Amino acid sequence: MDDAPAPRPRRGRPGYDQETVLRRAVELFNRQGYDATSIGDIAQELGLTKSAIYHHVASKEELLGAALDEALEGLTRAVATAAEDRQASAAQRLRATVEESVRILAAHLPAVTLLLRVRGNSAVELAALERRRQIDEALAVLVQEAVAEGALRDDVPPDLISRLLFGTVNSLVEWYRPGGPLTPDALAATVSALAFEGLRRP
Amino acid sequence: MDDAPAPRPRRGRPGYDQETVLRRAVELFNRQGYDATSIGDIAQELGLTKSAIYHHVASKEELLGAALDEALEGLTRAVATAAEDRQASAAQRLRATVEESVRILAAHLPAVTLLLRVRGNSAVELAALERRRQIDEALAVLVQEAVAEGALRDDVPPDLISRLLFGTVNSLVEWYRPGGPLTPDALAATVSALAFEGLRRP
Repeated sequence: MDDAPAPRPRRGRPGYDQETVLRRAVELFNRQGYDATSIGDIAQELGLTKSAIYHHVASKEELLGAALDEALEGLTRAVATAAEDRQASAAQRLRATVEESVRILAAHLPAVTLLLRVRGNSAVELAALERRRQIDEALAVLVQEAVAEGALRDDVPPDLISRLLFGTVNSLVEWYRPGGPLTPDALAATVSALAFEGLRRP
Repeated sequence: MDDAPAPRPRRGRPGYDQETVLRRAVELFNRQGYDATSIGDIAQELGLTKSAIYHHVASKEELLGAALDEALEGLTRAVATAAEDRQASAAQRLRATVEESVRILAAHLPAVTLLLRVRGNSAVELAALERRRQIDEALAVLVQEAVAEGALRDDVPPDLISRLLFGTVNSLVEWYRPGGPLTPDALAATVSALAFEGLRRP
């Protein structure tokens, strides 16, 4: 797994690299909404003038695109890795994917939060929604395989299982904050234990 | 349970009652964000002039408050009803509350969606967040009772169970749309079966 985003080439004024500008912009997008945030707001957040910010980025859409790529790359890799592991059963691969999705959400929380709020208001957002749709489709296929294999209950349609399972994972952005006593690994193990084994005492 | 919102007194021009104005305003809030929606936008949505809309409502905050009340009243009643039923075990009451919360979410989907997006930007929003906090607290107590009773697994802290359980319920607003083949009752039964019994084939 990949806890830290890949380093980006430094450019611009001392004290700010592209990575920092991106982090702070994404925080601002999540706090006040992407559409309500202007390049001027981002400049102000960083203590830069509006013309200085254009030294770092061409547009706020470039920042949105970079954040959505960050979130989507992690999730796409989690699904692809699971699909390739043909030694494991579909149920084991599904469980590994759920756990890896939780870890990616924790490691890239602001970017994943932004991704989950995208509605398709621009070409960049529509492209991100299309990539999310492909991820959801791959997850639904994995659930279907696990049901067909006989490991999962067959009284609930696989696409409904998939929506509820990854709805639970996505709901973590509403309250989980890394750095507390609940580590991403412990959270991942709890989410998958409850999803697969249920709340009832065995 | 309470499928239809209580009728509100009719007032205003023929063709629009308070209820219709509220419905359409909430749709608009959910579509473009509450903060980004003006009274002028709501008037335009209804084909009214800005001065005519003030015949129906005093402010957009009044509409927000009415929608949040609608969502909160249903959820508060679901939790209170479960708490009162002292014939049932805590686990049975928890399960009934999960199912009733799903039905309320389905019956009041636009209002609950709006509630779940509130961030606390005004007195009305802060009051709604405080009522949500009280509901979450009552739910956490119910989970705690069910764990103490021995019916639920005790290897996961009750507050984490509560967050994951109602995180799953809340995530339904992202994709569930009533009127399709999946009825609110069937959805409620599926959510509670998966949560309590898990995905694994018994």
